[in-house]
Amino acid sequence: MYQRTNGRGHDELRPISIDTNFVTNSGGSALITVGSTMLLCTANVESGVPQFRRDTGLGWLTAEYGMLPGATHTRTSREAAIGKQGGRTVEIQRLIGRSLRQAVDFRKLGESTIQIDCDVLQADGGTRTAAITGGCVALYYALQQVSPDAFVGWVAAVSVGEVWNEVLLDMDYGEDGQADSDVNVVMMQDRGLVEIQGTAERKPVAHSKLQTALELAEQGITELFKHQESSTTK
Amino acid sequence: MYQRTNGRGHDELRPISIDTNFVTNSGGSALITVGSTMLLCTANVESGVPQFRRDTGLGWLTAEYGMLPGATHTRTSREAAIGKQGGRTVEIQRLIGRSLRQAVDFRKLGESTIQIDCDVLQADGGTRTAAITGGCVALYYALQQVSPDAFVGWVAAVSVGEVWNEVLLDMDYGEDGQADSDVNVVMMQDRGLVEIQGTAERKPVAHSKLQTALELAEQGITELFKHQESSTTK
Amino acid sequence: MYQRTNGRGHDELRPISIDTNFVTNSGGSALITVGSTMLLCTANVESGVPQFRRDTGLGWLTAEYGMLPGATHTRTSREAAIGKQGGRTVEIQRLIGRSLRQAVDFRKLGESTIQIDCDVLQADGGTRTAAITGGCVALYYALQQVSPDAFVGWVAAVSVGEVWNEVLLDMDYGEDGQADSDVNVVMMQDRGLVEIQGTAERKPVAHSKLQTALELAEQGITELFKHQESSTTK
Amino acid sequence: MYQRTNGRGHDELRPISIDTNFVTNSGGSALITVGSTMLLCTANVESGVPQFRRDTGLGWLTAEYGMLPGATHTRTSREAAIGKQGGRTVEIQRLIGRSLRQAVDFRKLGESTIQIDCDVLQADGGTRTAAITGGCVALYYALQQVSPDAFVGWVAAVSVGEVWNEVLLDMDYGEDGQADSDVNVVMMQDRGLVEIQGTAERKPVAHSKLQTALELAEQGITELFKHQESSTTK
Amino acid sequence: MYQRTNGRGHDELRPISIDTNFVTNSGGSALITVGSTMLLCTANVESGVPQFRRDTGLGWLTAEYGMLPGATHTRTSREAAIGKQGGRTVEIQRLIGRSLRQAVDFRKLGESTIQIDCDVLQADGGTRTAAITGGCVALYYALQQVSPDAFVGWVAAVSVGEVWNEVLLDMDYGEDGQADSDVNVVMMQDRGLVEIQGTAERKPVAHSKLQTALELAEQGITELFKHQESSTTK
Amino acid sequence: MYQRTNGRGHDELRPISIDTNFVTNSGGSALITVGSTMLLCTANVESGVPQFRRDTGLGWLTAEYGMLPGATHTRTSREAAIGKQGGRTVEIQRLIGRSLRQAVDFRKLGESTIQIDCDVLQADGGTRTAAITGGCVALYYALQQVSPDAFVGWVAAVSVGEVWNEVLLDMDYGEDGQADSDVNVVMMQDRGLVEIQGTAERKPVAHSKLQTALELAEQGITELFKHQESSTTK
Repeated sequence: MYQRTNGRGHDELRPISIDTNFVTNSGGSALITVGSTMLLCTANVESGVPQFRRDTGLGWLTAEYGMLPGATHTRTSREAAIGKQGGRTVEIQRLIGRSLRQAVDFRKLGESTIQIDCDVLQADGGTRTAAITGGCVALYYALQQVSPDAFVGWVAAVSVGEVWNEVLLDMDYGEDGQADSDVNVVMMQDRGLVEIQGTAERKPVAHSKLQTALELAEQGITELFKHQESSTTK
Repeated sequence: MYQRTNGRGHDELRPISIDTNFVTNSGGSALITVGSTMLLCTANVESGVPQFRRDTGLGWLTAEYGMLPGATHTRTSREAAIGKQGGRTVEIQRLIGRSLRQAVDFRKLGESTIQIDCDVLQADGGTRTAAITGGCVALYYALQQVSPDAFVGWVAAVSVGEVWNEVLLDMDYGEDGQADSDVNVVMMQDRGLVEIQGTAERKPVAHSKLQTALELAEQGITELFKHQESSTTK
Repeated sequence: MYQRTNGRGHDELRPISIDTNFVTNSGGSALITVGSTMLLCTANVESGVPQFRRDTGLGWLTAEYGMLPGATHTRTSREAAIGKQGGRTVEIQRLIGRSLRQAVDFRKLGESTIQIDCDVLQADGGTRTAAITGGCVALYYALQQVSPDAFVGWVAAVSVGEVWNEVLLDMDYGEDGQADSDVNVVMMQDRGLVEIQGTAERKPVAHSKLQTALELAEQGITELFKHQESSTTK
Repeated sequence: MYQRTNGRGHDELRPISIDTNFVTNSGGSALITVGSTMLLCTANVESGVPQFRRDTGLGWLTAEYGMLPGATHTRTSREAAIGKQGGRTVEIQRLIGRSLRQAVDFRKLGESTIQIDCDVLQADGGTRTAAITGGCVALYYALQQVSPDAFVGWVAAVSVGEVWNEVLLDMDYGEDGQADSDVNVVMMQDRGLVEIQGTAERKPVAHSKLQTALELAEQGITELFKHQESSTTK
Repeated sequence: MYQRTNGRGHDELRPISIDTNFVTNSGGSALITVGSTMLLCTANVESGVPQFRRDTGLGWLTAEYGMLPGATHTRTSREAAIGKQGGRTVEIQRLIGRSLRQAVDFRKLGESTIQIDCDVLQADGGTRTAAITGGCVALYYALQQVSPDAFVGWVAAVSVGEVWNEVLLDMDYGEDGQADSDVNVVMMQDRGLVEIQGTAERKPVAHSKLQTALELAEQGITELFKHQESSTTK
Repeated sequence: MYQRTNGRGHDELRPISIDTNFVTNSGGSALITVGSTMLLCTANVESGVPQFRRDTGLGWLTAEYGMLPGATHTRTSREAAIGKQGGRTVEIQRLIGRSLRQAVDFRKLGESTIQIDCDVLQADGGTRTAAITGGCVALYYALQQVSPDAFVGWVAAVSVGEVWNEVLLDMDYGEDGQADSDVNVVMMQDRGLVEIQGTAERKPVAHSKLQTALELAEQGITELFKHQESSTTK
């Protein structure tokens, strides 16, 4: 049976902390750590909406994701210096945006745009799901200042994957490298599944394993909702 | 109950055709039409592999996706003129690449790179899944010429979505616009699930609905495998 | 004496077909094949004109040209992925635009912009002239829907070149590679010469040879006008 | 009858000067003025050739063209700041390159690359033809230093155009704006036509007018050859 | 007389902290806070040097600077999304690179390249000088692991400026906005001045004021050297 | 003791000439030569100001700097072809802009933007300081035409550096390569220091040497003011 670092159970999340006062210039912010993975998420509300939303009375939310060059063991090139965002970055920030748009009632927000920024300060697996979980906390705070009732509920995410025939919750970087499959699950509190992105780069997945993975994910995400909530009552 | 165009059943694919002789300059090609959606897929094998695969003895496969400006009802700007590929394009071509890599035994291919190109000549919903299904046929032909036993098996894809509380197979553009959720499913013949990308932009999805969707997708994909096979025996 | 493929005469065009119903989302379209060369041309009319035409009451026409990566024997890199259009592409699309602007009465069109897109599905020489000939058919159909009397007349194009001291009409890719000179001629029905672009990369051209080439081109273009006309009466 | 500035005849060139010592850091240089049009042309020879010429024993020549922002009456945006060369620039530098490659015997040069740079310091019509004429002088000097016998002969260029039904030699900017057609002719001394680029943006051109234009161009270019020659014997 | 926030004296630095264990994936790192300004600096050593240093036996150091979008009161656009680094970023990272190259003995390092990354997590004035001070600490740690004796000594920086005729040490963002002049001073321990960049956007500076500013800067930098040193002995 | 080319004294400028009639299409222009360094500077005034200046009643000035590829001994790549301006270019044009903004009273100019372009035709050291000195002359002429009283006074610049322990005024390219330090000084007539940018890439600078350098610079700049003035009275 596969032994996880620090004796962690297959259905156990890594230690989590969410600090909402690490930086203060944005409308809302959250420094989220999940094991050794650390991201700084900020949320800012700007008046106006993109062209396709004009004169609809509805707001919008977009997200951007970045990785500091020193966040990985081997330095990652800076996308601003290269002159474009890589495919992985684009894919991730679209996922974050779609997920967090569920948490906002755009009629109540009105024609404003929420900009979520998730920057990885240190990467050890699960950065895209931590970005969603932490980004939602930053979003909550930003909405508190401008339109509190536009916040619909918590959205959080976790990865599950199959390593050596065992389904593991919240894989770290080392586990991710050995996994046959990797499923990112995004859920909304009291509502259900928001996004699912499953990839089986090594070998196809049986339906039953997918079902197990979804159940494990739901259990982990329920715990994440508690972390999000308690971060707002400190 | 929702009435589909042309009296199509909720579990029925649109008419499909695959023409493997439309163009002849590439190693393999397929003009695939799914209803009014039409893509030209080509596959070419080049010697050499990207940096991260060098000296591993293993091959590689990458995919690119494009949309001709006139493919949509309202003209779409040309990405080559804008100077970058949009987020949607990047997301789709990464999905195609991951999916079709399952169909190749890279040890048997050796240090060569297969380049899949999927260009949408006309768009009416389901272009990314048609790209996978048609791209796999082009891939099959290209491998026949250089390394036939590197072909592992058929990979095909279809979308399923929930429209007015009914789960529909293979949504067209009009249905896609009304859907509460949209799940793209990629499977491999005799193997199982390769990729799943589910998005619930309108409202979260219950687990049971996801199960229904996966079953419907499996049924549709089984039919697609037959189209792929018969395209190779004409 | 130089022997052309399939016993074609030095003053003979390759077989031509123009299909105006291959795709239907654009205002007008034409799938044109000239021998093994195949392009999909679409025309779309959008309201508004570029800055320099504003408040003149006059319309405008621009053209874009592209090559699918699999269109050539050896795969061509995708310009959208590279991030810019190559010099050859830019040169060709400017030629198409200048040529087809002759076919439109911009006072009658009013402040709208016609966008011509010519995409090469398969390349075997003469893609830029086929783009003009096919693009004009797409243009004709797009104008029929919005402003039929703004169509002034047919514009068509062909290449002529000198191979082994013989002047050949409508060179294919193999002939082009051996040619001492290459002249692209664009004419307008009943009007005369619209564009001429002659290049002598191998050896300078005598005036008399240029005269012969122009006459041969005129003869070929006269035949192309008939193909354009008959494509509109099917 | 159309009256030209300064009583210039319809078959008369503007005053020309070529200064080959204005700058000295390049292998060869020429400051060419044609009326109020002024360009600085430089030529530099670098060892090595582009990929497609490797191991052929043959050299290569490429050209680049630029316009200083202050060269035009209304300031032109700097292409380096915009981040790409415009279509007109690309079209012109390809013409210069093709034209000047005629002047070099690449077997004698060996695997070196000649880089021609033509930068417009002041623009008053005819910058692309002045670039060819001046660029050939810079080329001559650069070859004198490394491979004198690789210089094959003078290449020069001029524009001719039809203004108010009269064919004019060497149009200035004001004439260019009124011209019905504009033909750029490039010739090689004792050899004949190298490039012809004729555009009839206003109305198609009759064959006879084209003949007249070519004769006028030949006469003007013959005079340009003399200026090129005398610039080398100062 | 100008009153500074928190009763700070005109010759007083803001509170400083340097945390060298905030992240651990890079060769060396420092989270530096100067008042409300906070940067994460990392240093990584890679084998190999840029082209111009090859085969010299000498190493190299380059620096990159970035600002997280949420670091400023009003969100700053992400340079990776825009597709290029702005002028201010380029200017700053060149300054950091030149400054920190003084701290390295490149003969002792050998043909390796040190990459310094300084990313602003929160901005309140003085980010470029904090980047130099913090970047030097990250550099120190990275060199400890590969080539300790290549570290020559501490380099630190501070800004001084004239506000309402008074010369102030270490201006914050609010002071910077009112300053008539702004001088960034970089010094090396026991060695002297490394860089000086003085700008008088509002009114020119008298020589005597410059002298006063340099003395104030030297005093502040002396204190910074102590912070750098003590951060290495925790 | 270090011997300068042509027996020039350590405190002597190179021969200078400023030609304000070399080109005539811009609002103002100056061809400045300093020894073998030669730049063409132009100034153009356009109505309107950047976003951040709108509705303030104040004008603006920006500067761009470029280097012709043939300006250097070894050809420099064209930034327009590369697709971006290099770091050195960006740094220099920001310096020119900041310096010349001192010379304009933006209240008197009103909401117009002055665009300064400084292009190096030949480089032999000191191009950025010559750009400021020559750019100010072009600026003077452009303002004469639209708003003469918005010109506040002359701004000029020179470099000083330490070579073999001797402080030299106005270093040429050869001296620059041997210098231990390089200080660019910008001053305004009758006002004082506008910008100082000192870099000690080889070894830190003592305060006393900086003082000597500033005095030498002031002496040289005083002479440059005379050249600027006399260029306006020819």
